[in-house]
Amino acid sequence: MCGARTPLRLWAAMSGDNPDAGDEFDLIARLFAPLARDPAARGLKDDAALWTVSGPTVMTCDAIVEGVHFFADDPIETIAQKALRVNLSDLAAKAARPDGALLSLIWPKGRPSDEIVRFAAGLQADLEAFGFGLIGGDMTATPGPLTISVMAFGGLAGARCPARADAAVGQDVWVSGTIGDAALGLRVRLGQGAGFSAEDRAFLILRYQVPIPRLPLALLLSRVAGGSMDVSDGLIADARKMAAAADVRIVIDPAAVPLSGAAHRAMAAGMASVDALLTGGDDYEILFTADPGHRPAIAEESLRLGLPLTRIGHVEAGQGIGALMPDGRDLGLEPGGFVHRMGGA
Amino acid sequence: MCGARTPLRLWAAMSGDNPDAGDEFDLIARLFAPLARDPAARGLKDDAALWTVSGPTVMTCDAIVEGVHFFADDPIETIAQKALRVNLSDLAAKAARPDGALLSLIWPKGRPSDEIVRFAAGLQADLEAFGFGLIGGDMTATPGPLTISVMAFGGLAGARCPARADAAVGQDVWVSGTIGDAALGLRVRLGQGAGFSAEDRAFLILRYQVPIPRLPLALLLSRVAGGSMDVSDGLIADARKMAAAADVRIVIDPAAVPLSGAAHRAMAAGMASVDALLTGGDDYEILFTADPGHRPAIAEESLRLGLPLTRIGHVEAGQGIGALMPDGRDLGLEPGGFVHRMGGA
Repeated sequence: MCGARTPLRLWAAMSGDNPDAGDEFDLIARLFAPLARDPAARGLKDDAALWTVSGPTVMTCDAIVEGVHFFADDPIETIAQKALRVNLSDLAAKAARPDGALLSLIWPKGRPSDEIVRFAAGLQADLEAFGFGLIGGDMTATPGPLTISVMAFGGLAGARCPARADAAVGQDVWVSGTIGDAALGLRVRLGQGAGFSAEDRAFLILRYQVPIPRLPLALLLSRVAGGSMDVSDGLIADARKMAAAADVRIVIDPAAVPLSGAAHRAMAAGMASVDALLTGGDDYEILFTADPGHRPAIAEESLRLGLPLTRIGHVEAGQGIGALMPDGRDLGLEPGGFVHRMGGA
Repeated sequence: MCGARTPLRLWAAMSGDNPDAGDEFDLIARLFAPLARDPAARGLKDDAALWTVSGPTVMTCDAIVEGVHFFADDPIETIAQKALRVNLSDLAAKAARPDGALLSLIWPKGRPSDEIVRFAAGLQADLEAFGFGLIGGDMTATPGPLTISVMAFGGLAGARCPARADAAVGQDVWVSGTIGDAALGLRVRLGQGAGFSAEDRAFLILRYQVPIPRLPLALLLSRVAGGSMDVSDGLIADARKMAAAADVRIVIDPAAVPLSGAAHRAMAAGMASVDALLTGGDDYEILFTADPGHRPAIAEESLRLGLPLTRIGHVEAGQGIGALMPDGRDLGLEPGGFVHRMGGA
């Protein structure tokens, strides 16, 4: 029997599909095998990974596509990292820690193969930073855009795995970090950032290109969260999904939603609206609910982690979203939330 | 804590990325939620799946791309099935049974959304046939070709999980089913099938479009296999990978390689060569090695399953592949094996 936690591996579909990519085995050995950190790794030389898991395991997969979720000329290292991190963000929201990942790398025929080296380097940096390894995957060529699908899995940080449906009437609504930066970063990337300072432009682009998975929150979420999910499609749209899953009404105070300095400056200069920030996407922050009795514990953990955790609303009986603006409009009544992809995707 | 074996789910990236696709939640509820068979399923409404696994779990992922692994006008049901089955083939080769799968469905913006209904139907038919469920996935739009990445996982059928590297000197080399049909099917699909009968054309196309994962072999493989892998890139190329992983030499008798009636007829009519059949791809048969003492057990299981298992060579000390043709050429010395993708992919 293969040993416990033995990552084996097939990169079968690589198979010379991409003539530029050089010899399959060389490429795997040189680039991806070191990403399988497990000492029992057999060098990614098999058809599949054999992983010995025990207990509840959270599994998620998300794909990102050139021209939809990132730009063709984004640094290839950050593309690799975004592909991984959007999945880690899901694990964090479910109060899990990453144990392993599988990668489907679908590489455009015309894209220089030396970028694969940089792709692997970007991935490796993240795997080291987040403390786990690649256990498998496959690589194939495509006549279309660069497409990366990652499946990440891991055990629970604590005893609970909060579902979206666990949001309950009477709970507070919280969000981590700041909201809207990535939507502004996308705008800057689209050439609409002339009014921003160079520093703000760099910050916002980074927030768009390299989301920060809130893995340090996993333990807190397992202890205090009612409902929990990550915010990827815009705060309002995602809160609406949680409300639907839990069959409750979520009321958000737009003025309470935490914004970065760059976002505040954009608002002050008339370059951004609250609407755009709350309905833009790619935040990859955690939206969760918790009983009011947990406020001290949440404040304490926020301080300990150096990560803002902000109370932005509450859960009540009913359905849908309320988000009343000072001008009387209710953002919760507007469709919104799907406006963040580039190019009408 | 979420219950054991509770498939939760996020189809977050669906998120209205595809305006034709209708409302995300409707689509999920209508099409994909029934594919999560587990009674504890919460309706695919969460960010991730929570699966309670115990013991060794085989995990694999493989992507297929329109214009590379299938034709844009292949029946969409068979595209769904091929995406799933190429992964099940990996599980079979590792002596595992499928327990669950995650799906990344990357849908072209221009492709009619009613085909998603048929895609889901094709997938559902297979999930029912193979006795497991979808536990999660995501859907996103692409400006490029239809691309499907599947991650499948499952426990072992027996006590062992045969690696490629387990091939050992002195063992026989076996292959399941027949070899080369899919390569001929691809040729027929490319319009080079004028010489075939209608029946042979239909058979060969089916072998190309809908591979048969050899899951019934899992228990036998766990008992008798030395090295084991599935044949996806051509028999010669894949045997070469096994030889490299195990640091042995694999000698194949081309005349012993099992061919279908259609392939025999193609050879007799001068429409196919042994070379093409042994180096073509997409067979999704199992290549394995076993001690000679297991010959009776293998013959018996072949009979019981109604599935040809054919001894085609042996493992010896050395490196690489030997496959001596009657004309004195050694197929093992030729590069080959990467000729099966369409359109120079």
